[in-house]
Amino acid sequence: MTIFFAELVGTLILILLGDGVVANVVLKNSKGNGSGWIVITTGWALAVAIPALIFGSYSGAHFNPALTIALAVIGKVAWSQVPIYFAGQFLGAFLGAVLVFIFNYDQFKSTDNKGDKLAVFCTGPAVRNTTINFICEVIGTFVLVFGILGMGAQNLTNGMGTLFVGLLIWAIGLSLGGTTGYAINPARDLAPRIAHAILPIPNKGDSDWGYAWIPVIAPIIGAVLGAVCFTMFS
Amino acid sequence: MTIFFAELVGTLILILLGDGVVANVVLKNSKGNGSGWIVITTGWALAVAIPALIFGSYSGAHFNPALTIALAVIGKVAWSQVPIYFAGQFLGAFLGAVLVFIFNYDQFKSTDNKGDKLAVFCTGPAVRNTTINFICEVIGTFVLVFGILGMGAQNLTNGMGTLFVGLLIWAIGLSLGGTTGYAINPARDLAPRIAHAILPIPNKGDSDWGYAWIPVIAPIIGAVLGAVCFTMFS
Amino acid sequence: MTIFFAELVGTLILILLGDGVVANVVLKNSKGNGSGWIVITTGWALAVAIPALIFGSYSGAHFNPALTIALAVIGKVAWSQVPIYFAGQFLGAFLGAVLVFIFNYDQFKSTDNKGDKLAVFCTGPAVRNTTINFICEVIGTFVLVFGILGMGAQNLTNGMGTLFVGLLIWAIGLSLGGTTGYAINPARDLAPRIAHAILPIPNKGDSDWGYAWIPVIAPIIGAVLGAVCFTMFS
Amino acid sequence: MTIFFAELVGTLILILLGDGVVANVVLKNSKGNGSGWIVITTGWALAVAIPALIFGSYSGAHFNPALTIALAVIGKVAWSQVPIYFAGQFLGAFLGAVLVFIFNYDQFKSTDNKGDKLAVFCTGPAVRNTTINFICEVIGTFVLVFGILGMGAQNLTNGMGTLFVGLLIWAIGLSLGGTTGYAINPARDLAPRIAHAILPIPNKGDSDWGYAWIPVIAPIIGAVLGAVCFTMFS
Repeated sequence: MTIFFAELVGTLILILLGDGVVANVVLKNSKGNGSGWIVITTGWALAVAIPALIFGSYSGAHFNPALTIALAVIGKVAWSQVPIYFAGQFLGAFLGAVLVFIFNYDQFKSTDNKGDKLAVFCTGPAVRNTTINFICEVIGTFVLVFGILGMGAQNLTNGMGTLFVGLLIWAIGLSLGGTTGYAINPARDLAPRIAHAILPIPNKGDSDWGYAWIPVIAPIIGAVLGAVCFTMFS
Repeated sequence: MTIFFAELVGTLILILLGDGVVANVVLKNSKGNGSGWIVITTGWALAVAIPALIFGSYSGAHFNPALTIALAVIGKVAWSQVPIYFAGQFLGAFLGAVLVFIFNYDQFKSTDNKGDKLAVFCTGPAVRNTTINFICEVIGTFVLVFGILGMGAQNLTNGMGTLFVGLLIWAIGLSLGGTTGYAINPARDLAPRIAHAILPIPNKGDSDWGYAWIPVIAPIIGAVLGAVCFTMFS
Repeated sequence: MTIFFAELVGTLILILLGDGVVANVVLKNSKGNGSGWIVITTGWALAVAIPALIFGSYSGAHFNPALTIALAVIGKVAWSQVPIYFAGQFLGAFLGAVLVFIFNYDQFKSTDNKGDKLAVFCTGPAVRNTTINFICEVIGTFVLVFGILGMGAQNLTNGMGTLFVGLLIWAIGLSLGGTTGYAINPARDLAPRIAHAILPIPNKGDSDWGYAWIPVIAPIIGAVLGAVCFTMFS
Repeated sequence: MTIFFAELVGTLILILLGDGVVANVVLKNSKGNGSGWIVITTGWALAVAIPALIFGSYSGAHFNPALTIALAVIGKVAWSQVPIYFAGQFLGAFLGAVLVFIFNYDQFKSTDNKGDKLAVFCTGPAVRNTTINFICEVIGTFVLVFGILGMGAQNLTNGMGTLFVGLLIWAIGLSLGGTTGYAINPARDLAPRIAHAILPIPNKGDSDWGYAWIPVIAPIIGAVLGAVCFTMFS
C-alpha cells in the first residue's frame, strides 16, 4: 500500500470517528446527545489510535500535516514525500467529513443551533481571542509532537506505543481541549470546514473562515517547536 | 471445545453483558439508571473483549454472523462451518437475552416506557429513515470488520489484539452508535428481539419487526465490504 | 510474605479503594458527590486490579472467599489453606472499612441519608426480591470466576492478565451491578457490614442484616458453579 | 539529559495537563465545564502517565518530592541527588502553572468564583478539618508509594509498568480524592499555589496559606511510611 493511500484511508477513519463522536454528542436526536466531554475526548482518542494501529506500518500513521512537517524538519521524513502525505491527509479528512454528514443527516436536520452543526466539522474558540487561541493550539500541538517523539523513543512494541498515542490524545483533549477544541491538526480542521461550506447541510450557518487560519498555522508552529525541542533534549 | 459451544457460550456472555448494560442504564430502579452513553459504550466494548479473550483460541470468537460470512467470503472460514457458527451465535444470543430478562425482572416491572424495554434487547433508530439507517449499519459494520482485519494483521500477542478489538467496539459505539444504536451484528439484534417477542415481559410493546431486517442485512453487507476492501488494500 | 498477610493487605487496599469510591460518590461534601455509575465502576475495577498486581505472586490475589472456595473445589487451592485465606480476607476487609470511615468522617457527618451511609460499606438491592437478588449475585459471581479462569487459561504475561481482570470487574459492575450492587464477594460485603454495625458512624441506620446472607451465600454458589463449568469446558 | 532537566520538563507537563484538566472542568466558558469527577481523575492519571513514560529512563520520573524523599529513605536514591530532584520538580511545577494560567486566561476572566480559580492551582479540603485532612493526604500518598514500589517489583516491561502507574493515580483520584483533592505531592500543590499568589489572575482570592502545609507535610509522611512498609513486606 502506498503512503498516499494509507494516509487517505487512515485520515478518513480518523475524521469519521472523530467528527462522528462530536455529532453524536452535540446534535439533537442522537442517542449520545448531551453525553459530554468524557465521550468526546474518549471518542477522539480512539479515532486516532485505531487507524494508527492499522496504518502505522505503511505510512507512520501521521494523519496530520503538522506532524508531517515537523518530522520533515527534523529529518525523519523526506521533504519530497510531504506533498504525498498532505494530499492523502486532506482528501481523507474531506471524505471522512462527507461520510459524517451522510451518517448523521437526520440529526443535522433535527438540530437548530448553527454553531453545533459547525462544531461537528471543525473547531472554534470558547472565547474568541486571537492571541490566546493561537497560543493554545501551539501548546496543544507541541505536547502532541513532543509526546509522540518522546514516547516513541521508548521503542514500545506489540501495540503499546499506539496505545500510549491514544492516551496522549485523550490527555490533550481532557486537559488542553477546553479553550479551542484542540484542532492540533490542520487537515482535521480545514478539510472538514471546507466540507461544511460545500455540503448541503440543512439550515447551516457560515463556516467561520475568520478563525480558520489559526488551527492551520498554530499547529504547524507547535509541531515544529515540539520536534525541535525533542531533538535538543534527546 | 467445539466451535459451536465456544460461539454459543461466548455470544451468551456477550449479550448478558451487552444487553445487561443497556438494562442497567435505561430501566427504572436500577443503580445505573440514567448513567448515559459512556456507561453503555464502555459496557458493550467489554462485553465483546472479555469473551473474545476467553474463546478466541477455540473459535476465533466471532459472536457475529456478519463477521463469519465476511471471513468465509475472503476464505478465512470454510463455508461448511458457517452454519455451525450461526447456530451457536443465535442460540447463545437468545439465551443471553433470557438471562438479562430474569436478571432485571423487577426493573422491567418498574419501567413504564415500552421503548426502553425493547431497547434492552435490540436496536432501533433515533430517527426512522430506512435509507440512512441502513447506511449507518453498513458503515458501522464496515469499520468493525475492516478494523478487526487491519488490526489483526499487526499480529499483536499477549492479549493486546483483543484489547484493541475492545477499543474498536468502544470507538464504534462512541462515534457511530448514536443514530441506530450500532447493532453491527445480526445475532445480537435478531435473537434478543425474538426473546423480547416470546418472553413474558410485563406490559411490553411490540418488537418493531418492521425495522428488524435492517440490523440483519446491513451488517452483512458492511462486513463483506469491509473484508473485501481489506484484502484489496493489504 | 505469607498468604495470610498478602490476602490481608490486598483485601484492605481493595476495600479502602472500593468502598472509598462509593463514599466519594454517595456521601455529601465529597468532591466526587453525584459523579455516578461510571466513577463507581471504574473505581471498583481499579480497586481489584491494583492490589491484584501487587500481591498476585504471593497468594494468587483472591481477596474473595467465594473465589478461594471455588478454587479449592476444583483442586487449585488446598482445603487446608482455605481458613488462612478467609482470615486474611475478612480481617483485611474489616480494617479497610474502618479506614474508609476515618477517611470520610466529615462526609459521613454531612450526610443525612442512612441508606447512603450503609451503601458505602455493603450492598443492598435496588428492588428487594430474595429470589431474584440471589440469582443476580449467583450470575455475577459465575461470570467473575468463569472469566478469571477462562482468561487465566490464556497465560497472559507482563501484567496483561491482571489488566483483563480489572476489565472483567469493570464489565460486571457496568452490566450486572445495577440490581444488587455486585457484591460477588462475601468478605467485601460482610466484613464492612460488621464494621458499619460496630463503628460510631454519626446518625447511622441499621445494617440490614436481613439481606446480609445473600451476598455471602449466593457468591459462593456462583463461584463454585463458574469454576466447575470452566473445568468441564476446558 | 540530566535528572534536573528531566524532572523539570516532566513536572511541567504533569502540571500543564493536571492543573489543565481542573481548569477545563471548573472554569466558566471552557468546553469541558461541569464535566465532573471522571474527567478530572482521568486527566490527572494521564498527566502522570504520559511524562512518566517519556522521562522514566532519565530520572525515574518522580515528579514528586515526597516520592524522592521516600526513595532516599529506603536507599533507592542518593541523598545527594535529592536537592537536584527538588529543584527540577518545584521549578517545573511552577512553570506548568504559569502556562495553565496563560492557556486559560479568558476562562479565568470569565469565572467569578474565587475558590474555583484557586482550585485550578492547588488542593483544598471539602470539609476543613486539620486532623482528618492530614490523615487523608497521608493515606493517599501511602497508597501511591506502596503501590508504585509494589507494582514496580513485578518488573513489568514495554510500558506496562507506566500504564499501571497511571491506573494507580486514577484509582487514588476516584477513591481517595474526594475529601482533600489528592495533592499527594508537595511540588504539585505548593509551586502552583505560589504561582496563584504571584500571577495577575483577574479578581482572584487569597491562596489559602493556612492549609498549604498539609499537602506538603502529610504526603512526605505518607510516602515514607509507604516505602518503609514496602521494604518490610517484600
